[in-house]
Amino acid sequence: MMSESTFPALVAPGAPLSEEQSQRAARQLALPGFDILAQRRLAAARVLVIGAGGLGSASIPYLVGAGLGTIGIVDDDLVELSNLHRQITHTTANIGLPKTSSLAQAAKALDPNVRIIEHNLRLDSSNALEIFANYDLVIDGSDNFPTRYLSNDAAQLSGIPLIWGSILQHHGQVSVAWHAHGPGYRDLFPVPPAPGTVPDCAAGGVLPGLCGTVGSLLATEALKLIAGIGHPLVGKVLIYDALAANTRTLEYSRDPQAPAVTELIDYEVFCAGSLPEVQPIEATALAASLARTDAPALLDVRNEDEREQQYVAGSLHIPLPELEAAIESGAALEQIPAEVTVYCARGPRSQRAAALLAARGINANYLEGGLPALAAEKPQLLVEPQNAKGV
Amino acid sequence: MMSESTFPALVAPGAPLSEEQSQRAARQLALPGFDILAQRRLAAARVLVIGAGGLGSASIPYLVGAGLGTIGIVDDDLVELSNLHRQITHTTANIGLPKTSSLAQAAKALDPNVRIIEHNLRLDSSNALEIFANYDLVIDGSDNFPTRYLSNDAAQLSGIPLIWGSILQHHGQVSVAWHAHGPGYRDLFPVPPAPGTVPDCAAGGVLPGLCGTVGSLLATEALKLIAGIGHPLVGKVLIYDALAANTRTLEYSRDPQAPAVTELIDYEVFCAGSLPEVQPIEATALAASLARTDAPALLDVRNEDEREQQYVAGSLHIPLPELEAAIESGAALEQIPAEVTVYCARGPRSQRAAALLAARGINANYLEGGLPALAAEKPQLLVEPQNAKGV
Repeated sequence: MMSESTFPALVAPGAPLSEEQSQRAARQLALPGFDILAQRRLAAARVLVIGAGGLGSASIPYLVGAGLGTIGIVDDDLVELSNLHRQITHTTANIGLPKTSSLAQAAKALDPNVRIIEHNLRLDSSNALEIFANYDLVIDGSDNFPTRYLSNDAAQLSGIPLIWGSILQHHGQVSVAWHAHGPGYRDLFPVPPAPGTVPDCAAGGVLPGLCGTVGSLLATEALKLIAGIGHPLVGKVLIYDALAANTRTLEYSRDPQAPAVTELIDYEVFCAGSLPEVQPIEATALAASLARTDAPALLDVRNEDEREQQYVAGSLHIPLPELEAAIESGAALEQIPAEVTVYCARGPRSQRAAALLAARGINANYLEGGLPALAAEKPQLLVEPQNAKGV
Repeated sequence: MMSESTFPALVAPGAPLSEEQSQRAARQLALPGFDILAQRRLAAARVLVIGAGGLGSASIPYLVGAGLGTIGIVDDDLVELSNLHRQITHTTANIGLPKTSSLAQAAKALDPNVRIIEHNLRLDSSNALEIFANYDLVIDGSDNFPTRYLSNDAAQLSGIPLIWGSILQHHGQVSVAWHAHGPGYRDLFPVPPAPGTVPDCAAGGVLPGLCGTVGSLLATEALKLIAGIGHPLVGKVLIYDALAANTRTLEYSRDPQAPAVTELIDYEVFCAGSLPEVQPIEATALAASLARTDAPALLDVRNEDEREQQYVAGSLHIPLPELEAAIESGAALEQIPAEVTVYCARGPRSQRAAALLAARGINANYLEGGLPALAAEKPQLLVEPQNAKGV
């Protein structure tokens, strides 16, 4: 079975196993296609796990169990009560501790011989290459897009494979980005999603068992790459649907148009900059079009108290925070027409709202100068509820 | 999404959640299609997990994290060093403790409010119905066929759903047997495999991450059934191949020919009784056929020291324990011809060997009365190595 693997083993065998190591690995050494040399490769391997949350909690114990010699853990968070529903390797007693320490403690309880390196920091472009240089393989179980693109680029520049997993609500994805042998994360997702269009686990929720399924898959892919067995997910992404209880696998290949990765960039800026550009409309033009039979729908994104003072007759009202929450939760935007002009008090909130809507496929622009500009142009369009009550 | 589920919720909502319960469940309550009533169903639910090994280790933490109120754990084993490579919720410090206690300790460390009931015993026909009566749902993560059939029948007789998982080497399976709504384990596997033809994890090995993937799937199916969300694996078996990193789902339905389950039986006897029947051959007949040109191949399954005394000229030699190990490990039996007569000193060992070979598709019979019967019939067929050396 060793000969049927897609790739040769990633890591050279280390020193002969101790008697305890052999006993711990007995059920692995009994596997067809697995042998003492494969086990020595695992013992010599150094794996970096990015994120000590839901996926790190699930993958690290299986890496330890498999006999990995050195495991680095990157995270700058502290354990919180609301983590425990899915980050099940942390404990109630460890609330408030750095997540790296909490997982290191659990790893050592499973096997005191494992070497755990705690990187209690946030991975960024200034430290990633230096950290990656000490590892044979990276597992990215982080929960945000800047880190996902950073780990992809840093793994490519470091010449090591990256196994990444993502989880949200009822869905998970797993793939291997190994530049020497196949496409990377950027070939599957050339541009990051528009900010606010994909919720995180805090806003969108996540099924706990999903973390276990995806995190275990990450550990299994790592074992396969290090020992050189089986067929890792290079050029393939496995997509798991927990509600349907099935998976499918999509193949993808290198994008010949993709710009070369030559250095690390500012990934926060890269991921923040990708809301679609939307056009302003001047108050004069809007006033004219509102007089026509094909007048555009209007959306007011100001707060309740602002709305109570004055609004444009016939306009919809969804305060910006509510709109953002609805978009983050992936809710259907049924009440918003396919073409809409957004307004607020001055312009910035309506610009952001229009961009968020445009990212969801709605043809949106925004009123330049906000409500006062339209009021100056055509005051009879405005309703003043306070005065109306007084009548 | 609640309305899109296949089945209504299994468990009625319990008391309103405490403030701590709500905080712990925050990321679950944020899921679309999940609500406070669903969470109260989980808190009221009582789930029995059979087996505190690889699958129990993986599923129980996610059941606790999800907010299950009561979890029973059945196992009569103690934690051993060689368990830890895949049974990652146990710890080195807990070696020698009952597995139920070790998992109860881990569950309480994750959430001190969960109610854990330790059933430190082996499930059998005398206790299963009494234990099942206290639970809403059973998860079978056991490692043997008698328990698998027992839990299927006991769940059916108790009127509760069974979620079962199995793991071996690089493969796992998950399905839901819920007699009220679909087929059961017996409809998929009407007869148990011949003893010795399917290795256990000790003989055949198991990838550690496989336990995590399958165990998490069990926990996810339990959450779905209790809360009434999604589409559980009723009438479907999910098959995971860790080396290929993919899954497939097979549908199966109720077998109209299957005998009704009306009571529990002796499952050890049921599973032991399924080796194929093999025929004896009398020494006279064997001696005659050995004189012909189409003489059958002979296989000696006695031990080394017995062989050194005397054997039939031209016979193969594989001691029975070696043959059993080879068959359990799934090794190819290339050196054994398609048609063979097995002999030992008296008969019982050769009968068992012939049955094991027959279960693997080899046309095997065995010498009645063993070697002495053949020696009495035709002594010139025998070789005596000791004497040969003396010559």
